[in-house]
Amino acid sequence: MPADSTLSKTSSQAYAPDDRNEAVLVHVNGAFVPRHQATVSVFDAGYVCGDGVWEGVRLVDGRIVSFDAHIDRLWEGARSISLDIGLSKDGIKRVVVDTFLRNGMRDGAHARLMVTRGVKKTPNQDPRFIIGGATIVCVAEHKVVTPEAKQNGLKLFTSTYRCSGPDVFDLRLNSHSRLNLIQALIQAIQAGADEALMLDPQGFVSSCNSTNFFIVRGGALWTSSGRYC
Amino acid sequence: MPADSTLSKTSSQAYAPDDRNEAVLVHVNGAFVPRHQATVSVFDAGYVCGDGVWEGVRLVDGRIVSFDAHIDRLWEGARSISLDIGLSKDGIKRVVVDTFLRNGMRDGAHARLMVTRGVKKTPNQDPRFIIGGATIVCVAEHKVVTPEAKQNGLKLFTSTYRCSGPDVFDLRLNSHSRLNLIQALIQAIQAGADEALMLDPQGFVSSCNSTNFFIVRGGALWTSSGRYC
Amino acid sequence: MPADSTLSKTSSQAYAPDDRNEAVLVHVNGAFVPRHQATVSVFDAGYVCGDGVWEGVRLVDGRIVSFDAHIDRLWEGARSISLDIGLSKDGIKRVVVDTFLRNGMRDGAHARLMVTRGVKKTPNQDPRFIIGGATIVCVAEHKVVTPEAKQNGLKLFTSTYRCSGPDVFDLRLNSHSRLNLIQALIQAIQAGADEALMLDPQGFVSSCNSTNFFIVRGGALWTSSGRYC
Amino acid sequence: MPADSTLSKTSSQAYAPDDRNEAVLVHVNGAFVPRHQATVSVFDAGYVCGDGVWEGVRLVDGRIVSFDAHIDRLWEGARSISLDIGLSKDGIKRVVVDTFLRNGMRDGAHARLMVTRGVKKTPNQDPRFIIGGATIVCVAEHKVVTPEAKQNGLKLFTSTYRCSGPDVFDLRLNSHSRLNLIQALIQAIQAGADEALMLDPQGFVSSCNSTNFFIVRGGALWTSSGRYC
Amino acid sequence: MPADSTLSKTSSQAYAPDDRNEAVLVHVNGAFVPRHQATVSVFDAGYVCGDGVWEGVRLVDGRIVSFDAHIDRLWEGARSISLDIGLSKDGIKRVVVDTFLRNGMRDGAHARLMVTRGVKKTPNQDPRFIIGGATIVCVAEHKVVTPEAKQNGLKLFTSTYRCSGPDVFDLRLNSHSRLNLIQALIQAIQAGADEALMLDPQGFVSSCNSTNFFIVRGGALWTSSGRYC
Amino acid sequence: MPADSTLSKTSSQAYAPDDRNEAVLVHVNGAFVPRHQATVSVFDAGYVCGDGVWEGVRLVDGRIVSFDAHIDRLWEGARSISLDIGLSKDGIKRVVVDTFLRNGMRDGAHARLMVTRGVKKTPNQDPRFIIGGATIVCVAEHKVVTPEAKQNGLKLFTSTYRCSGPDVFDLRLNSHSRLNLIQALIQAIQAGADEALMLDPQGFVSSCNSTNFFIVRGGALWTSSGRYC
Repeated sequence: MPADSTLSKTSSQAYAPDDRNEAVLVHVNGAFVPRHQATVSVFDAGYVCGDGVWEGVRLVDGRIVSFDAHIDRLWEGARSISLDIGLSKDGIKRVVVDTFLRNGMRDGAHARLMVTRGVKKTPNQDPRFIIGGATIVCVAEHKVVTPEAKQNGLKLFTSTYRCSGPDVFDLRLNSHSRLNLIQALIQAIQAGADEALMLDPQGFVSSCNSTNFFIVRGGALWTSSGRYC
Repeated sequence: MPADSTLSKTSSQAYAPDDRNEAVLVHVNGAFVPRHQATVSVFDAGYVCGDGVWEGVRLVDGRIVSFDAHIDRLWEGARSISLDIGLSKDGIKRVVVDTFLRNGMRDGAHARLMVTRGVKKTPNQDPRFIIGGATIVCVAEHKVVTPEAKQNGLKLFTSTYRCSGPDVFDLRLNSHSRLNLIQALIQAIQAGADEALMLDPQGFVSSCNSTNFFIVRGGALWTSSGRYC
Repeated sequence: MPADSTLSKTSSQAYAPDDRNEAVLVHVNGAFVPRHQATVSVFDAGYVCGDGVWEGVRLVDGRIVSFDAHIDRLWEGARSISLDIGLSKDGIKRVVVDTFLRNGMRDGAHARLMVTRGVKKTPNQDPRFIIGGATIVCVAEHKVVTPEAKQNGLKLFTSTYRCSGPDVFDLRLNSHSRLNLIQALIQAIQAGADEALMLDPQGFVSSCNSTNFFIVRGGALWTSSGRYC
Repeated sequence: MPADSTLSKTSSQAYAPDDRNEAVLVHVNGAFVPRHQATVSVFDAGYVCGDGVWEGVRLVDGRIVSFDAHIDRLWEGARSISLDIGLSKDGIKRVVVDTFLRNGMRDGAHARLMVTRGVKKTPNQDPRFIIGGATIVCVAEHKVVTPEAKQNGLKLFTSTYRCSGPDVFDLRLNSHSRLNLIQALIQAIQAGADEALMLDPQGFVSSCNSTNFFIVRGGALWTSSGRYC
Repeated sequence: MPADSTLSKTSSQAYAPDDRNEAVLVHVNGAFVPRHQATVSVFDAGYVCGDGVWEGVRLVDGRIVSFDAHIDRLWEGARSISLDIGLSKDGIKRVVVDTFLRNGMRDGAHARLMVTRGVKKTPNQDPRFIIGGATIVCVAEHKVVTPEAKQNGLKLFTSTYRCSGPDVFDLRLNSHSRLNLIQALIQAIQAGADEALMLDPQGFVSSCNSTNFFIVRGGALWTSSGRYC
Repeated sequence: MPADSTLSKTSSQAYAPDDRNEAVLVHVNGAFVPRHQATVSVFDAGYVCGDGVWEGVRLVDGRIVSFDAHIDRLWEGARSISLDIGLSKDGIKRVVVDTFLRNGMRDGAHARLMVTRGVKKTPNQDPRFIIGGATIVCVAEHKVVTPEAKQNGLKLFTSTYRCSGPDVFDLRLNSHSRLNLIQALIQAIQAGADEALMLDPQGFVSSCNSTNFFIVRGGALWTSSGRYC
């Protein structure tokens, strides 16, 4: 899967190139560090086993869109995996706001807030092996969709990889374990498309691998039932 | 989920405490660094979205158990997710061997070799955003099971979290996206057990969350069919 | 599974101890007999193979709550298994009313009306082996929930036993074949909880093993879809 | 579902009429009582909610066929539902042997041994409400298949009722909760057949409602995989 | 399965015998030919592999009922299987109207419009082997339901054949591949019924084999969810 | 889906062009007619609703490969759908042999023998509407795989269309209702592949849309379990 120079047009996650992103400061556990020095331990539960939750938020004209709803979802996700975030909701919102502020962003920016279970005594999947608390990382970048991308749209490919049900892995949990979604996307890319459309366990359309799916059909807007994404 | 001081007796992943582990050198992309300085970028695909594969190998009396089989499985897994390891099989075996050697280990040691898709231009799940090649990390530690653990055995708990089928997420792929297995384990811990027994999609016993499951029944040894683990 | 002296606090079916219950008269096929002499044949289809339907009704201040709805459901259940109750709806209502009256109950009482396929020529599952008609039993007891139980609430445990769909066994049928629900409850008890929460075949929350499930979430009351319970 | 006078020819459970059966003595909790006086409490868990296990054994020329295997299965079933039988294996075998002996049977007889969870304080499904121990009943009867039945064979009907998997209700457990099997049989009878052939959850042939299924196909004997029956 | 002389009373597809039907002209690819000379090639994709879509429309008092809706569904079906009809919607409507007109029908008539992928170079299932365009056939007949049929109703039989989901074969596609529906009907006929009631993959009632299913229950009209038919 | 001039290289059903095929005689219900005059009624059950069974047999050096096995499967399929072929096995074998003979074929030929339920009184799916007996068609053609095709191999594409289980539509039945297999193939073609690989209902590899699937893996030959194809 080689890197692709035309990504700004063909990925659902693409955005216009912006040189300022090379110099952004990243929040790592309370400190702001230059992008290329922002690291986590190889013993971090997020790295070792995808054990964490995250939210992506968008800054538009000085306001973070649906900020409370995002933080509520983060809290509910963390609670569902018994992950102790270690901050109050206000504290975690402060992390995001500060990251935008330290980078002088007011509009056209996007932040990914990642909370993993933290450093472990040894690299395994047992959550009781954590040492200390959660690892909190916030990356903010200048991201606006290119006009061409909007105009061209994206090609979807229906993947053989299915969304999982809540008895397997509840995809309403926004987690660091995304490999089955990545598999769906790889399949789409290999078939010449840009994003994967995924089915639910009964074979009905559910969602795209990294974005929500909407369709206008007969003048009505259809989207997922919300049971599997 | 607080850390637990009696873990050496109650986790399937437990081992006898060994002070030497504090000083081990970790292989990170060709370099050996002290454990507490071993890091990966917060933009690494392993950290951001559990996008990687790994193997755990055991060193017994100077020999790595089933070394070739482990490396073959790593290769097959990487290929199934279009991850370019960037080394030959011999090259990757050298990484493991060197890690044991640099740490002076000859017996009673265990190494976790982790290969993730590498650093990305931005933290998202699209594999086309990688910059450069895979990230290779190898952690070796002194690990022997305590005699008490062997004697006591582990308490299993049948989890409501199921092993997924190959159309959802093939668990025969040894990946960095382990959160549903961790959820099963958390459920087991909360019910007072040590490890989760997981069912397959048809409701039959499949595997434990991090270990294989064997049972002696009527004088015969039973284990998984291998379809879901 | 030993009897438990603290049941009045920990079972969803618990109630305050009431000495009057030792002396209640039970309706058995038209006769009223003391509790300890109330019996059915060992050839009764209810005993041999759980072949019957029942309703539990509550007497509050002289009125039986939702009486018609309960009798309608009993009728529909009996019809779905080709069980001939042998009485009219009014006749069966009279059985319940008489049972409350004979026991001098006006409030705080509960009756379990059981209708099984009747005595069989031999103990097997074939309904054509019945001799004579249905067996009708009605047990009325003084049952009020203890204030402590209401205050403490119950601990729920999510069971690995699933509610079955209508092609296996329609749980909307209130039958004498309850063993899979009992298995779920046993699992809950062994995990230290009081009642089992059961999932539907797709893995979504369905119902408790013997009670309906309601949850207040974001100010709204959620309950089952009614498809599997 | 009216009683049917031609049953000795059309039920898989049929046998030649034998007047001696009217006078058999039934074992009930250690006592031998005439058939028509053999009863259990209406509070018995078997009657109230199908909470029990049973075995059917055949006496041929003084020997009980596969006696140990049947008792082993009873034990395993009881254990799987936490039912304490209250006797040793030898004790329970004595019950069966004594029942045959007291009825002077040496050949052509069949016994149904039923072990339910016992009398409960109130008719509900919670196993913690039992008072005292298990109820043990053993019914022995003279049963030989009529030659006509063997000659005619039985008509099978494929039912829409499915065998359930182990996550719903493991049919390898020989229990008193048989209503879904009875539903399958009723469907077969209403379609003019004698016994129901049931499918497994994947839609493959599994078993008959009360008997095992064998088919000779291309000179080979085929039967169930044993996963669902 | 012998032909049945009482069909006009017992098939959901039955109609009063009408001698005029022997002389109807059939539209075949633009020509009108007598019924008994109306043929298609044995290389036609419809014949070889059920590769086509169709609609049945009813002519009542000079108007075709829901004509646009039927043509829209035909179009959507054809598109979903990449079948190029080769005419505009108006063109295809003209085929139907002309067929009614040429047969002098104004009321009490029914037409089946069939569009198959056309003649192939060789009889296989690969759609790339077509030569030329789609085959269009329109059969119009005088069809009114007999009063007796309406009065008697039809006997339904619940089939073990299930409606398939969209990941197997979307039954909302009105296609020439109907054999699983025919199997369900055969099963119903063999059980003495007239039409099969089919379940969805979860075991809930879905639809009849060739007609929609409606039921009045408690004063309300219930029908399918539309997900599987 | 336009016809494709490079098919002889890219379809699993392709063969070297052979001009003699334009002049073959086709067997239609006992007569031999030139290819372009070989027709069936538009009322034929095969055309109207894919109601028929077929076999493809290969002639190699004067011998028909596995001839008896093919005829046995045809018989079993016909019986499973209550289709009366109207000939003995020898009679149907004669049809095939005669077709090869009349076309002077001795080697490198392939015949498709198609048996449909015959002409119907009206175009519907009810099998009781047949008039007369089955329609028997046999098409023989000169077909050898081109050496290039063998050398190039075929590109497979894993389809989202699944093989169905026996409770939906048993794909071991070689029928004229092939549209879901065609859908899988269309999906493959649109993704740039030549043939579709289809999964079973549990998500495991099952079969290709028109050919069997074999894979050499670790020196062993793997193929389908035979449960879904």
